[in-house]
Amino acid sequence: MTFSATILTLYPEMFPGPLGLSLSGDALARGIWSLEARNIRDHGIGRHRNVDDTPAGGGVGMVLRCDVMAAALDAAVTPDDLRPKLLMSPRGKPLTQGRVRELAAGPGAVIVCGRFEGVDERVIERRNLEEVSIGDYVLSGGEIAAIVLLDTCVRLLPGVMGKEASGHEESFEGNLLEYPQYTRPREWESRSIPDVLLNGNHAAIEKWRRAEAMRITKERRPDLLDKSS
Amino acid sequence: MTFSATILTLYPEMFPGPLGLSLSGDALARGIWSLEARNIRDHGIGRHRNVDDTPAGGGVGMVLRCDVMAAALDAAVTPDDLRPKLLMSPRGKPLTQGRVRELAAGPGAVIVCGRFEGVDERVIERRNLEEVSIGDYVLSGGEIAAIVLLDTCVRLLPGVMGKEASGHEESFEGNLLEYPQYTRPREWESRSIPDVLLNGNHAAIEKWRRAEAMRITKERRPDLLDKSS
Repeated sequence: MTFSATILTLYPEMFPGPLGLSLSGDALARGIWSLEARNIRDHGIGRHRNVDDTPAGGGVGMVLRCDVMAAALDAAVTPDDLRPKLLMSPRGKPLTQGRVRELAAGPGAVIVCGRFEGVDERVIERRNLEEVSIGDYVLSGGEIAAIVLLDTCVRLLPGVMGKEASGHEESFEGNLLEYPQYTRPREWESRSIPDVLLNGNHAAIEKWRRAEAMRITKERRPDLLDKSS
Repeated sequence: MTFSATILTLYPEMFPGPLGLSLSGDALARGIWSLEARNIRDHGIGRHRNVDDTPAGGGVGMVLRCDVMAAALDAAVTPDDLRPKLLMSPRGKPLTQGRVRELAAGPGAVIVCGRFEGVDERVIERRNLEEVSIGDYVLSGGEIAAIVLLDTCVRLLPGVMGKEASGHEESFEGNLLEYPQYTRPREWESRSIPDVLLNGNHAAIEKWRRAEAMRITKERRPDLLDKSS
């Protein structure tokens, strides 16, 4: 089964973008996942294919019309499509590695990229869109957020990373940030690799790494430790 | 003064990518900001231009060498360069709209994109890299995170958004998520735009929007309300 991504966007030319290179790009070329970017404007209204209008109640900017968005969604998704329908939005639930793992284990995703001042609330409700936020900052649109979400999912698909790499610990697994890493050269600008990493005592190395992961998490992200308790 | 971004990456061909289109792309073409992507591999070692080696103490994957990263940084940055040096990393401090505003008000950024199992800790310390995380999930590399960071900054640069739009409230300003938006048509799939938005009573509209922003923030992100108190 292929992980299948359908993107609804006003900028289909942004895709695959960085997803066409490196790890995700290799996996795309190998058919481990598929990507379709559909232009919302194809469902725009009238000769100018309008997709937006001014906010009801006033205010700056433009709002994506519910009828246009619904038409774009209904054309992209068949009734038996089991993929979750996501709307990338700063109002959404923050993306976590746990949600990424769930999505990567599923059939794929239909991803709506918001623009302007947002999307008419009625289509979010009626088409049951799950609002997802990649962080507490504001992007110019949902496209880059969709690229983030797909990159996090694709690297977890079977066959994308080596078997060895995919099973191992990394940041947010176990609610800890990663311990510091070192490699050759042993001495550099009068700084050495910590001795414990060089003496081949695997139990001591494991202990040091756990203590360092805990220290760094406590210093930088005590909120992650609260989550695990 | 132009906001100047220098990226150190193993995938310079990922840039400008989505930043070359839409709002950021227009601003790039108009010279409001500049982007230089430099290949870390140009500073690689030996005939094969090696940039990484196995982790000291064992473990899967590869670690970016401190000497190679330092050479790439030192070639990219002159001593009088006042730009912050950022390392995109899941171990970093979470990016916030407040930090985005600070960065956008400054001279730009030098952004190191991590890959593999990370970067040798010594170069992070010796070159004073500020580790920045865009969220609690794991990407295949720092490039997409750098694209996120630059998009958030560029849209705030003077002249990028209309004067009107740039001053107004949006998600995370005032620690509230945005209220729901509606636009034409007035009736759609038997759902109407809320009456209050249609009667032209601006005080009532403002009150409704504030109450909705508060309700949505309480429901979805009570953690944001804690931050404002």
